[in-house]
Amino acid sequence: MTEMEWLEYLKIYINEGGTLIKTKNEDCAVIKLSEENYLLLTTDTMVEEVHFSLKYFSFYELGIKLATSNLSDIAACGGEPLWGLLTLGAPFPPEENWAKPFLEGLNQSLKKYGAYLIGGDTVKSKVLFFGLTLVGKTSFPILRKGASSGDLVFVSKKLGGSAAFLRLIKTLDKDWIPENIKKAHLVPCPEVELGLKLSQYKLATSMLDISDGLVLDLARICEENRVGAELYEENIPIETHATLDEALFGGEDYALLFTVKEKDLKKIREIEISLNKKLYLIGRIIKEEKNIYLIKHKKRLRIEPRGFDHFIK
Amino acid sequence: MTEMEWLEYLKIYINEGGTLIKTKNEDCAVIKLSEENYLLLTTDTMVEEVHFSLKYFSFYELGIKLATSNLSDIAACGGEPLWGLLTLGAPFPPEENWAKPFLEGLNQSLKKYGAYLIGGDTVKSKVLFFGLTLVGKTSFPILRKGASSGDLVFVSKKLGGSAAFLRLIKTLDKDWIPENIKKAHLVPCPEVELGLKLSQYKLATSMLDISDGLVLDLARICEENRVGAELYEENIPIETHATLDEALFGGEDYALLFTVKEKDLKKIREIEISLNKKLYLIGRIIKEEKNIYLIKHKKRLRIEPRGFDHFIK
Repeated sequence: MTEMEWLEYLKIYINEGGTLIKTKNEDCAVIKLSEENYLLLTTDTMVEEVHFSLKYFSFYELGIKLATSNLSDIAACGGEPLWGLLTLGAPFPPEENWAKPFLEGLNQSLKKYGAYLIGGDTVKSKVLFFGLTLVGKTSFPILRKGASSGDLVFVSKKLGGSAAFLRLIKTLDKDWIPENIKKAHLVPCPEVELGLKLSQYKLATSMLDISDGLVLDLARICEENRVGAELYEENIPIETHATLDEALFGGEDYALLFTVKEKDLKKIREIEISLNKKLYLIGRIIKEEKNIYLIKHKKRLRIEPRGFDHFIK
Repeated sequence: MTEMEWLEYLKIYINEGGTLIKTKNEDCAVIKLSEENYLLLTTDTMVEEVHFSLKYFSFYELGIKLATSNLSDIAACGGEPLWGLLTLGAPFPPEENWAKPFLEGLNQSLKKYGAYLIGGDTVKSKVLFFGLTLVGKTSFPILRKGASSGDLVFVSKKLGGSAAFLRLIKTLDKDWIPENIKKAHLVPCPEVELGLKLSQYKLATSMLDISDGLVLDLARICEENRVGAELYEENIPIETHATLDEALFGGEDYALLFTVKEKDLKKIREIEISLNKKLYLIGRIIKEEKNIYLIKHKKRLRIEPRGFDHFIK
């Protein structure tokens, strides 16, 4: 099975009933504890030579990146991160020289948003890997489901930087890669404050974080809501030194991708001011089911979602 | 660092304040949500050729064992298991021929106790590994802290079977190993019902599940409470075909080890009847800090805690 097929297959075994309001096709499992009191659960694992290489990652950066990939999932549901469980698999005994910077990076990132490590598991493994399970809460979860035709499509930061890093590191030494590109891949920032604001004001009709690429993740929103989307090519924010292709299809940018009713556009502008942060209006949801179009000089080009799949040979 | 040193070191980074009533030195992180409403969080990972071998484990058995190792942690805090997140790391794409029996084993075990998978993460990895994070709840958490001098020490099942399997499989074909020994290692049962009863009646002054060996885990209770313990050699329940040494020092039996006030002995006997299950009175907590003695024919032998450490060279 490819990763996509496997995730479909897994659904047979995933429960979604009772207090579990949404667990399939989401960034987090969403559990209703009581009125306006939801628990969010997510887990993400990074494996050496699959998700990272020690050739260009410091352990401090790895700690930050592991935190971000999980914090971003909580952010994508409009949540506040709370507690983390760390799984560490290592071929060598833990030593302070690498464990300390790793834990500092992880802990600093969690702490920035009020979250903490509360436990975990350490195991021996021939391959180095780091896993984090993060628990969060929200009074109003934002799901992938909810977008409808006419909604505006927003993205929360410039895209393609992470993919550009992976392109550049093939031929350049880390020191020669522009700072913004290094940051995008090695120490990306999760959009926790924005996710919380959008939840607080109930502004996003649907949301996820871009981990596998803008078009692929937008296709997920479209599929979930049986709609399509148009993207305005000139509005897509491309990270300096990245390409349009990387902005459209590159993964691991950890931007929030969300949809908003047109009538709420003014409120989005207010959030921009309150967070002192630009939000990019990049497109619109259309009726035409599952199709995504790139609009350029009044031309309309249909684009196929494609992105990273662990198990495509 | 050895695993023990590492777990000590990690404590700098583990938070234990606010609503987190207990996270260090526990089977689960225990979080107080409200009066008589606690959340329990645990995670356990199994790595090929470290925790299991496909030479003698079927995927169905692996699913059961992964569930048990986590369910047992919830049981050890007197909890009811609720929701699981599965992490799968595999060097090959998931295929139904192995994924189905694995998920069936995992899901059946969780379901037996009312728990469900609600999400997870699937990644490529050179080494096969399975991780589960399990969330549970309880109205009265049982911690390691609480035992005091004079308390009786109980264990919930016969011990040493899992270690006996590892001894026998070195020289015997799986088919030649006695059923009870195979069961003990390959498809162990967690003591969820017992944990719940002990919590409901507030009977255990301290508790954990034996995952690293009776003496080592008892030493943990002693250290946490600054006490010692005596074990009555003739009372230690040894699994048929296992040895005393395996019962004392063998890991992965997933028995509950708990302490009870002497005045509550009658209530323990009532629980035995209601669960139709024998509980073994194997010793007593003594004042003498950290020392553990084996009592045999009125002789008193001091025993050193020893057990499995991932990172002792």
